[in-house]
Amino acid sequence: MKRRDSFKKLTKEDVDFFRSVVSSSGVIEDADDLEHFNHDWMRKYRGQSKLVLKPSTTEQVSKILAYCNKERLAVVPQGGNTGLVGGSVPVFDEIIVSMGNMNSVRSFDEVSGALVCDAGSILEVLDKYLEERGYIMPLDLGAKGSCHIGGNVSTNAGGLRLLRYGSLHGTVLGLEVVLPDGTILDNLSTLRKDNTGFDLKQLFIGSEGTLGIVTGVSILAPKRSKAINVALLGLDTFDQVQAAFKRSKEELSEILSAFEFWDHGAIGLVKEHLAVGANDPLQSTYPFYVLIETSGSNKEHDDEKLGAYLEGLMTEGVVQDGVVAQDTTQIQKLWAIREGIPEACSKAGAIFKYDISMPVPVLYEAVQDMRSHLESLNAIGKGKPFTSVIGYGHVGDGNLHLNVAAKDYSKEATAMIEPYVFEWTAKHSGSISAEHGLGISKNNHLHYSKSQPMIELMKQFKNMIDPQGIMNPYKYLPNK
Amino acid sequence: MKRRDSFKKLTKEDVDFFRSVVSSSGVIEDADDLEHFNHDWMRKYRGQSKLVLKPSTTEQVSKILAYCNKERLAVVPQGGNTGLVGGSVPVFDEIIVSMGNMNSVRSFDEVSGALVCDAGSILEVLDKYLEERGYIMPLDLGAKGSCHIGGNVSTNAGGLRLLRYGSLHGTVLGLEVVLPDGTILDNLSTLRKDNTGFDLKQLFIGSEGTLGIVTGVSILAPKRSKAINVALLGLDTFDQVQAAFKRSKEELSEILSAFEFWDHGAIGLVKEHLAVGANDPLQSTYPFYVLIETSGSNKEHDDEKLGAYLEGLMTEGVVQDGVVAQDTTQIQKLWAIREGIPEACSKAGAIFKYDISMPVPVLYEAVQDMRSHLESLNAIGKGKPFTSVIGYGHVGDGNLHLNVAAKDYSKEATAMIEPYVFEWTAKHSGSISAEHGLGISKNNHLHYSKSQPMIELMKQFKNMIDPQGIMNPYKYLPNK
Repeated sequence: MKRRDSFKKLTKEDVDFFRSVVSSSGVIEDADDLEHFNHDWMRKYRGQSKLVLKPSTTEQVSKILAYCNKERLAVVPQGGNTGLVGGSVPVFDEIIVSMGNMNSVRSFDEVSGALVCDAGSILEVLDKYLEERGYIMPLDLGAKGSCHIGGNVSTNAGGLRLLRYGSLHGTVLGLEVVLPDGTILDNLSTLRKDNTGFDLKQLFIGSEGTLGIVTGVSILAPKRSKAINVALLGLDTFDQVQAAFKRSKEELSEILSAFEFWDHGAIGLVKEHLAVGANDPLQSTYPFYVLIETSGSNKEHDDEKLGAYLEGLMTEGVVQDGVVAQDTTQIQKLWAIREGIPEACSKAGAIFKYDISMPVPVLYEAVQDMRSHLESLNAIGKGKPFTSVIGYGHVGDGNLHLNVAAKDYSKEATAMIEPYVFEWTAKHSGSISAEHGLGISKNNHLHYSKSQPMIELMKQFKNMIDPQGIMNPYKYLPNK
Repeated sequence: MKRRDSFKKLTKEDVDFFRSVVSSSGVIEDADDLEHFNHDWMRKYRGQSKLVLKPSTTEQVSKILAYCNKERLAVVPQGGNTGLVGGSVPVFDEIIVSMGNMNSVRSFDEVSGALVCDAGSILEVLDKYLEERGYIMPLDLGAKGSCHIGGNVSTNAGGLRLLRYGSLHGTVLGLEVVLPDGTILDNLSTLRKDNTGFDLKQLFIGSEGTLGIVTGVSILAPKRSKAINVALLGLDTFDQVQAAFKRSKEELSEILSAFEFWDHGAIGLVKEHLAVGANDPLQSTYPFYVLIETSGSNKEHDDEKLGAYLEGLMTEGVVQDGVVAQDTTQIQKLWAIREGIPEACSKAGAIFKYDISMPVPVLYEAVQDMRSHLESLNAIGKGKPFTSVIGYGHVGDGNLHLNVAAKDYSKEATAMIEPYVFEWTAKHSGSISAEHGLGISKNNHLHYSKSQPMIELMKQFKNMIDPQGIMNPYKYLPNK
């Protein structure tokens, strides 16, 4: 890929202007300090930005973008930089606008649960704030300790609570967004219902910083459940996983808050690489594991429902083994296994990560077919390019995280799994990016999940909002 | 308002073309037959269309729009024509595209609950279809026997189940839309998660036919609850209504599926005008009524939760009286009171209907302030322009239906309540249209709820998708 000629290169005058807008501690030029912002946490994507700006107010963001737009300086917005597709790091010398200094709660309504906060607020900090007030953030993900709510919104993050509370398209009540020309779009509504015109905020949810910078978020927090139960199950086949899922929808219904699964390979990596591997309470190992969480308002009722559900599964042989957490510590220990999987994978060598959604019945076929495919190429096993194919994810959302462990990231290795994995997904009417987004990693593969008229309309829309193309360039939409 | 000169007037050649596209029974030109399509059910809005087209396929819709776009013929899409803001009837001689002939279920996935159907499917028919399969439509409204799912989506209908299942922005999985130039945008995804590009379908949800015609809908249906309970409460003050609501979020939590209220005036009209007025089981009348519904998977648990909740309210004097429905018939009888209110209002004379949302604590002040305002104008009471001001609605969503009964619809009467009601709403950071939409009734009042940059961006967006402006003209966006 080539740097776009139409973008200006940063000058001393530009930096002087930015110094006049943000405080001096909010302008980072030192090479060592820049390093941290120029690559992602997996060290898979790396840019060469010469400047990081850390605005403290929406007005500062507005001045920065208006200037960049006028001067044709390219910009990449950065939140917690926990993404998996290179969306928040520069490709060349884009200016990084890092949102970490905008991290205040602006208001919280204890009757409705509407929380309004700065985009740079850390997800876990917000969740703790709400916990003290009897509420909960409607989303949760492994990166909660670092990721920003503005990044969550900009990437339409899914995560562990989507099954219960739905997507951000439903829970975000309003946004404050700075457009590329500096216009502040103030739509920080706290209303649950508002049918006055096109719901423009929806387009910024999941737009990965290509249309402007989200500076404020209004989101509907549900009441925190008084009772939480977590069970870990061991199962022999993915058919059994599906059977357990179907019955959970029937019997746990309104108290079901998570239905996660992982396979034998995933638990193996956790046990090999992480201390939390010792948390597994089951007596033996199984081909499949399911973590079920329930959340409700009456512990006794929930215990009874979960007990009856698990007894039914055991009696009918759907499940081989199972353990119910007895207290908060045990609940955290079981969740730590699930949340440790991505980290464990990253220690297993170079990891090709795919995040695909599809109808539940074919979910695990994706893993099996990928394994067979690599076997047919004689490319998996000891001394070969790939060491293992593992699968885990959100059964309730039809969302599989397919990880392929390789000796290293090479063009040859990539060519063995791509476009195979995308073609497989398209053949099963799936999405090539269920929740991770496109960034620089999937943008040129968009056609596997979206038709040409859809892609054309997206381009039209991007050009309308960002005619100079300064916002997060080279990403999201196909470069071709 | 003036007919827009740029629109062509319909010719015999145009009608001949349309006859070549749709079957002859799908072309309506007879004046008597047209009548029904030219006005809304309240007979408040009336157009003079000379042509109704009833396409049977998406391809026919595409051919119709492509032709109209080329020839600059204005179009109004029409579903069940149950709207309240004149959005689905022509203003002048726009061609009506009526969707009633496209009414098939295309597919249903019994594992995930994803339903794909034609836009002209009637909401109640879909709900019955799902009932047989153990699922439920995530929305319900009084007009369910006539309204189309395509109309529900195009108006972002709220209704009675939003508290539990959220808005259509969260439950709609995909749409098939025909753009003004005839392009078919196929985005009928059945995936719960899909982060591949801008979520374009969101802009069509609630766009009231101004961007094209929705022809197909994919929606996520939840499992139908095994146990339903409904209770009717009588209360003395709106503070008590709020207290009962707050406690329901605590104690009924995950099984709460509706929290509706109405006032003394509303029940009075139902008793005066409708047979279902006799359904009221309470011994006396009260200033406020609350209907609570719970839906869950275990009848015994739900009974226990609801019983404890009601006992608490009674003991602490939050509620003066209450009845719990004992069977399905009684449940339907209680709901019939709530669902009868709009009809009862329409029999009370000319009704000015407002549908506003705001923070729950000020919800009923809107009714009281409007009453005081009309009293201060000496305009309410016997022999005066207005007879009563009543309020009802969805407490859980902060959504009030404010109805002002008048002797007739006159400019003078309108001037006494507008812009007063809009200014009141803006002052309380509310929405002037919570769920009814804008149509021709609220389009020029949009600035009370949206900022100028938001309105400008909406116009830009409309111009991008519909440069000739043929889709549902004169409505939705301000004419000025």
